[in-house]
Amino acid sequence: MKNIGIIGGTGYTGGELARILCKHPDIEIAAMTSRQNAGKKVSDVQTYLKGYVDLEYTEALNAKDMDLVFVATPHGIAMKETPALLEAGVKVIDMSGDYRLKDIASYKKWYGHDHTDAKHLKDAVYGMPELFRNDIKKAEMVANPGCYATATILAMAPLFSSGIVKNDVIVDAKSGTSGAGMVPSARTHHPFCGESIIPYSVGTHRHTPEIEGALNSVSKGNAEVLFTPHLLPIVRGILSTCYLTLTIEATDDDIASIYEKKYGNEPFVHFVDEPSIRAVVGSNHCQVNAKIFNGKVVAFGAIDNLVKGASGQAVQCANLMLGLKETSGIDVPGMGV
Amino acid sequence: MKNIGIIGGTGYTGGELARILCKHPDIEIAAMTSRQNAGKKVSDVQTYLKGYVDLEYTEALNAKDMDLVFVATPHGIAMKETPALLEAGVKVIDMSGDYRLKDIASYKKWYGHDHTDAKHLKDAVYGMPELFRNDIKKAEMVANPGCYATATILAMAPLFSSGIVKNDVIVDAKSGTSGAGMVPSARTHHPFCGESIIPYSVGTHRHTPEIEGALNSVSKGNAEVLFTPHLLPIVRGILSTCYLTLTIEATDDDIASIYEKKYGNEPFVHFVDEPSIRAVVGSNHCQVNAKIFNGKVVAFGAIDNLVKGASGQAVQCANLMLGLKETSGIDVPGMGV
Amino acid sequence: MKNIGIIGGTGYTGGELARILCKHPDIEIAAMTSRQNAGKKVSDVQTYLKGYVDLEYTEALNAKDMDLVFVATPHGIAMKETPALLEAGVKVIDMSGDYRLKDIASYKKWYGHDHTDAKHLKDAVYGMPELFRNDIKKAEMVANPGCYATATILAMAPLFSSGIVKNDVIVDAKSGTSGAGMVPSARTHHPFCGESIIPYSVGTHRHTPEIEGALNSVSKGNAEVLFTPHLLPIVRGILSTCYLTLTIEATDDDIASIYEKKYGNEPFVHFVDEPSIRAVVGSNHCQVNAKIFNGKVVAFGAIDNLVKGASGQAVQCANLMLGLKETSGIDVPGMGV
Amino acid sequence: MKNIGIIGGTGYTGGELARILCKHPDIEIAAMTSRQNAGKKVSDVQTYLKGYVDLEYTEALNAKDMDLVFVATPHGIAMKETPALLEAGVKVIDMSGDYRLKDIASYKKWYGHDHTDAKHLKDAVYGMPELFRNDIKKAEMVANPGCYATATILAMAPLFSSGIVKNDVIVDAKSGTSGAGMVPSARTHHPFCGESIIPYSVGTHRHTPEIEGALNSVSKGNAEVLFTPHLLPIVRGILSTCYLTLTIEATDDDIASIYEKKYGNEPFVHFVDEPSIRAVVGSNHCQVNAKIFNGKVVAFGAIDNLVKGASGQAVQCANLMLGLKETSGIDVPGMGV
Repeated sequence: MKNIGIIGGTGYTGGELARILCKHPDIEIAAMTSRQNAGKKVSDVQTYLKGYVDLEYTEALNAKDMDLVFVATPHGIAMKETPALLEAGVKVIDMSGDYRLKDIASYKKWYGHDHTDAKHLKDAVYGMPELFRNDIKKAEMVANPGCYATATILAMAPLFSSGIVKNDVIVDAKSGTSGAGMVPSARTHHPFCGESIIPYSVGTHRHTPEIEGALNSVSKGNAEVLFTPHLLPIVRGILSTCYLTLTIEATDDDIASIYEKKYGNEPFVHFVDEPSIRAVVGSNHCQVNAKIFNGKVVAFGAIDNLVKGASGQAVQCANLMLGLKETSGIDVPGMGV
Repeated sequence: MKNIGIIGGTGYTGGELARILCKHPDIEIAAMTSRQNAGKKVSDVQTYLKGYVDLEYTEALNAKDMDLVFVATPHGIAMKETPALLEAGVKVIDMSGDYRLKDIASYKKWYGHDHTDAKHLKDAVYGMPELFRNDIKKAEMVANPGCYATATILAMAPLFSSGIVKNDVIVDAKSGTSGAGMVPSARTHHPFCGESIIPYSVGTHRHTPEIEGALNSVSKGNAEVLFTPHLLPIVRGILSTCYLTLTIEATDDDIASIYEKKYGNEPFVHFVDEPSIRAVVGSNHCQVNAKIFNGKVVAFGAIDNLVKGASGQAVQCANLMLGLKETSGIDVPGMGV
Repeated sequence: MKNIGIIGGTGYTGGELARILCKHPDIEIAAMTSRQNAGKKVSDVQTYLKGYVDLEYTEALNAKDMDLVFVATPHGIAMKETPALLEAGVKVIDMSGDYRLKDIASYKKWYGHDHTDAKHLKDAVYGMPELFRNDIKKAEMVANPGCYATATILAMAPLFSSGIVKNDVIVDAKSGTSGAGMVPSARTHHPFCGESIIPYSVGTHRHTPEIEGALNSVSKGNAEVLFTPHLLPIVRGILSTCYLTLTIEATDDDIASIYEKKYGNEPFVHFVDEPSIRAVVGSNHCQVNAKIFNGKVVAFGAIDNLVKGASGQAVQCANLMLGLKETSGIDVPGMGV
Repeated sequence: MKNIGIIGGTGYTGGELARILCKHPDIEIAAMTSRQNAGKKVSDVQTYLKGYVDLEYTEALNAKDMDLVFVATPHGIAMKETPALLEAGVKVIDMSGDYRLKDIASYKKWYGHDHTDAKHLKDAVYGMPELFRNDIKKAEMVANPGCYATATILAMAPLFSSGIVKNDVIVDAKSGTSGAGMVPSARTHHPFCGESIIPYSVGTHRHTPEIEGALNSVSKGNAEVLFTPHLLPIVRGILSTCYLTLTIEATDDDIASIYEKKYGNEPFVHFVDEPSIRAVVGSNHCQVNAKIFNGKVVAFGAIDNLVKGASGQAVQCANLMLGLKETSGIDVPGMGV
């Protein structure tokens, strides 16, 4: 049995980690921290955990007792929490964006402030098992991918790694509101977003360099992504619609083969005819598809933003880092309806 | 042409007043105030008013230029704004709860602070034209009814005024989120409320005494309301489901006759077989129905909370107070779909 | 390992059974029937089952191979499927309403046609473990409760069994649209129901006698329920708001004690301060609460209509009938967000 | 006063025509036909029209009494209704797709059956006043544009007419469910679409040639559109996100000027910073925006699919055809909230 801790246990990703890990056969939640709720029973605040998590939130956790710690705090804070953990010899998975971009200048450009932990940044592994499984197994520190980035990269990676598409792609992504986290804002105020679809951060969203970086890793190319996120009036789920240009002649069957070759043995990524948010919600699964229209490819990726797009993928990485079975604790189907 | 002003022009009820009044044939919007947006063009902030409202928000308005002022500020502030307006000889419609309860002790009990304008409170008329039309015509000051109160009172008033029901009633009401106003909060955060229905303020909601007061006015009775509001994952609309106990034997046809007699000539209240939020959204209409089941009556009332439940009803009152045609500027059907 | 079959495998409750049972440690899905999809791979039709259910739908199933069969067909059909199964010595759980009412005359009144299997009806056990656990353990045939009925009965049973409330109660229930099943209809057409709340079958819904029957079983009373269901614009979840009248003096703490005594050891029913659909969605849990207002009690029950309100509860019953651990395969928390 | 008739009065576009026209100062609804509801009062079926439309549905209408007839039937039927009307000397606006494509071969390709009224097809004018105002004024027959086409064409027309973009564009469009019409289907069944976003008809949607045709009309170019529609879980509203490639160097201000020049005097199209469905819902307005990112342009168009995307635009055309003021009866702001 491995012991893990969660720093930032009351946010959506922290709570989702607890929801998943409380039934994990090989991992035990040893501590959950929360500044605002320290001293309270976890299951009094997050009542869905009643009967499953018998802990109180604490101000801090004792790293020495842990095999791995999930840092589920906002970016900027994560890179302050992480160094001490790593130096105490604990493995770390950071849920924020702090360790996703390898280049410090790029971090400053996209996040608007300096990176304060360049030392560990260079060793952090991007936590997408389908692309970087072996690196994750050996990592002390994993940067868990962004939600949009996960759906988008998985939708396009086979096309990039097979070298049959041009570098410049258009991504029109749509996310449920839980992706915005638990702090109320004007954009997630129901009367504003509840009967609409709201584009935001057009061309400037922080997942853009993350997507480009991952696509470049698999293609040695120079991906250029125009990324337009939209807020959907649903709670969970992302659909990423990607538009690419073919550099060769190909058929839909050729494309399907490329995806099957890449994902055929993956437990959590399925090439299906009609990727559906409802099919994956509540699960760590991703459904993808791609079809050709007049020399262009339209590729889709659908995930639950809080599971494969956050806490489920983090547990998948933790399993790899801790030498456990990769699917342990996350091997359940989506809700379907 | 009458000139009116709106104090608090950026909130939902202030914006809705502007949406309605910008096309009113007999009323002109002379000023809209907004502390946070003073100096900005109204139509730059509320872009749906582009081409319809050619004003800038101001810090304050000059009461002398106005025939009537709508006070669309939160309760507590409204009773500070109102006295000066009335003393300047301007008619006032208060959109908040400050002038709805005639009894100062009751106000303190339900609103949690002292009432500071007892002087004008006693002359304020409750602005529901279907019940108090003649008083409104003569009023200098109208307290515009609450949204829940409007749907609920209109659903039950005929039963109370005909004296055929017991005093204690149960009201299970459901409202769209725009009723909560434009300030984001935990309850209206989409991930929390977007796929749920959330009961709140059970037995303690401030519209309770308002409903009891209006029912008592039409029945000389002693109504006792158990009121349970629920937040719905829709933006506009209220459905109020009311449960009453008959004191006589009656048929559904008898009940229908009672409603027809009461509302048959009303322009905005219709007794229909299946009251529907979609049928009234966007309009000042209210649909009601009532049927008997084993000696009990189930009565329904459906409105758009921002129109008949707020700004539309306020314009209806303004028309009466200013000697205009009651339906002027608000005589449009609901959206239907 | 126990073998089970699902008759009617493509409907929502059939699919939900498969979603749950595919990960059940002690039960294996041996067959799923579907008239329209016979011969197709289950996971090609219900893609969320890809990697979890490796079966083809069949026209029929061979009862002899089964320990238990779930009949997930519409009422009227279920009572035609069931007799042969029972006569073949297989245990049966019927998901429809066919075996929920003990009285044939009552069945005809509420369902509009004759009951054709009076023989087995009299031995069928109402499958709500919290009330009838011992009977279920010994049953050959269980009638799985209705979704509304489950939320409503669990919300009120402690009050009835402790004999402190009057017989006549008002239930104002709200359900997600998946409760209507998978056949499109005018009422579940999104443009009609998507931004509304729609009361239907007021006073005439078939779950009414079911609720009365269960409450009478625990109270030896004569419950009289006025039941008003409303269709909510959410997919999963029921909130039942129940209004009762106290016959004694009591405090909120007294009420809480009564619920704790009844449900304190139940794995799936929790008395919490604010029952929430989001807290239970995706799980077999039910959250309840009850508070006093002027001699009346407002009681709430929240469930996922497809899990505790249908397939999860059925698996809970199956566990009991097959001598397995009651929580086996359904012991997961709700989604929370 | 002009008399008009509506063929197909119970569908969404027929009902929406009635909602708008019942308050039109210069037009009177003389007849509404409905096969299924003939003989019933319109306001008993569409209760939101109570007090506004005092007609019964008829089986057919007498063309001679009309100045103009709206044909609001499905495609295929419209081209059977239209010839007789035109031959009787009545002006016609067809709400379906039957007269939108000038080329009969193209019609057959996209609609799957032969066109049976080539005679009138050649004179039909595409009813988008912002592009073809003068032709509409003189037209006997107008093909009212598709909903997606309207949002998309208005979003991109200034770029095409100024000749600064490449021919091939990507359109990722999102529509509320009312665009699917009032007949229930699997795709609009709430449990399926209510918490999802569903791409459909990728690359094959019938509005594709319509969009290309209109863009070619204003550019003499050879537009090639890859069009991906998605079904949103909202009732009303379309957002069209369009991706184009610049052929020149330009700034955001240059782009804004191009739109201002094109639309600055238009009553219903506004270039705003953040186009919003809520700002236009309930109105005939369209909000557009376009910005540059690395040589690409992202252009947005937002409309109410039933108003500017159907019945409102049809009334705008009718006003032009009948010599009335273009904005008559449709000059109201959007709902805003």
